[in-house]
Amino acid sequence: MLNDLLNWRYATKKMDADRSVPEDKVEAILDAIRLAPTSSGLQPFEVLVITDRDIRERLKDAAYGQEQLVDGSHLLVFAAWDTYTDARIDMVRDETGAARGGVTERLMDYYKTLKGNYTARDAEVNFQHAARQAYIALGVAMVAAAEQQVDATPMEGFDPDTFDAVLGLRDKGLRSVVILPLGYRATEGDWLKDAPKVRRDRDRLFTRID
Amino acid sequence: MLNDLLNWRYATKKMDADRSVPEDKVEAILDAIRLAPTSSGLQPFEVLVITDRDIRERLKDAAYGQEQLVDGSHLLVFAAWDTYTDARIDMVRDETGAARGGVTERLMDYYKTLKGNYTARDAEVNFQHAARQAYIALGVAMVAAAEQQVDATPMEGFDPDTFDAVLGLRDKGLRSVVILPLGYRATEGDWLKDAPKVRRDRDRLFTRID
Repeated sequence: MLNDLLNWRYATKKMDADRSVPEDKVEAILDAIRLAPTSSGLQPFEVLVITDRDIRERLKDAAYGQEQLVDGSHLLVFAAWDTYTDARIDMVRDETGAARGGVTERLMDYYKTLKGNYTARDAEVNFQHAARQAYIALGVAMVAAAEQQVDATPMEGFDPDTFDAVLGLRDKGLRSVVILPLGYRATEGDWLKDAPKVRRDRDRLFTRID
Repeated sequence: MLNDLLNWRYATKKMDADRSVPEDKVEAILDAIRLAPTSSGLQPFEVLVITDRDIRERLKDAAYGQEQLVDGSHLLVFAAWDTYTDARIDMVRDETGAARGGVTERLMDYYKTLKGNYTARDAEVNFQHAARQAYIALGVAMVAAAEQQVDATPMEGFDPDTFDAVLGLRDKGLRSVVILPLGYRATEGDWLKDAPKVRRDRDRLFTRID
């Protein structure tokens, strides 16, 4: 049950540095990210999957020294497209054509309209839009990790410029937006592990209009 | 399995106007939204759950006439906080204290720092941040809907100003960011229903740094 998974997970503060997430579990999480829905199916992001220790140490220094970056075994960096371009949308058009029996006139028209809408906007507006799509995938990834009984700590507390520089993202037209270390909760040293989950009362979060 | 749910779901283009989603399924989806992780646990959004036909007709007119808004039985409108304020963060502090044995000095300090960080930023930056958190919940909601075998169509194609006006959101410090009609796919009339799902090849979406 999804809600059991959501109750099981938490933003792990202390990971067990001696345990690694098996590759088949990492792959299942990546599969879920790949299947996550995005606006017009554009999937406007990439995900870096980092185990390299030296790189993770450097990134940790740009993330307020948060130990999960190195105590976890895998670090996911969600990097959104810095803007939408004709080439990127043409790539999606061709992927769609390949999966659905060719680039028809209908597909051509659809993606032509998309290109017109997106490329007319400021890069920053497009980047913000792309970043939101990455957050859909982040949400799905956290569910996937919980299903695998893998701990994951979503983090925005890092310096994106340094991350972009260390990972060479800007040259690829990418900007880091959120990171997700994967690992296993330590048995000791995590103040949050046994704390009750806090969520807003339903009547403050939802409004019915019937 | 999560990935089976993700493969089952799709952005339903034609919903069966004669079928309603049972309330227990809607409640399960709302539970998942409530349990979705957010930055610092702030849950900086509200969700409107609309069945009222007249309201949905008016909103449809502000959403390019997309029929799912009225052919579905429930319309979810994710509305993000327009900014972070001391009062809003104090609310979260008090919720946390209530769930975890009181507002300790540690909690006071933590939320004081949060307030300092957030309230110093432009409202627009804060809104964009809040909107991203709503997208995490959107991702989780789509998984929850699939688990309930309920169809859901994520939509950004609407005029947020009109939505905000019809729903009186701005006066509550909210801004609509994304909507999700819930319903059941029609047996006929949905060009997308039987089309193969298109997703980017893994090697273009993921980069390993080992």
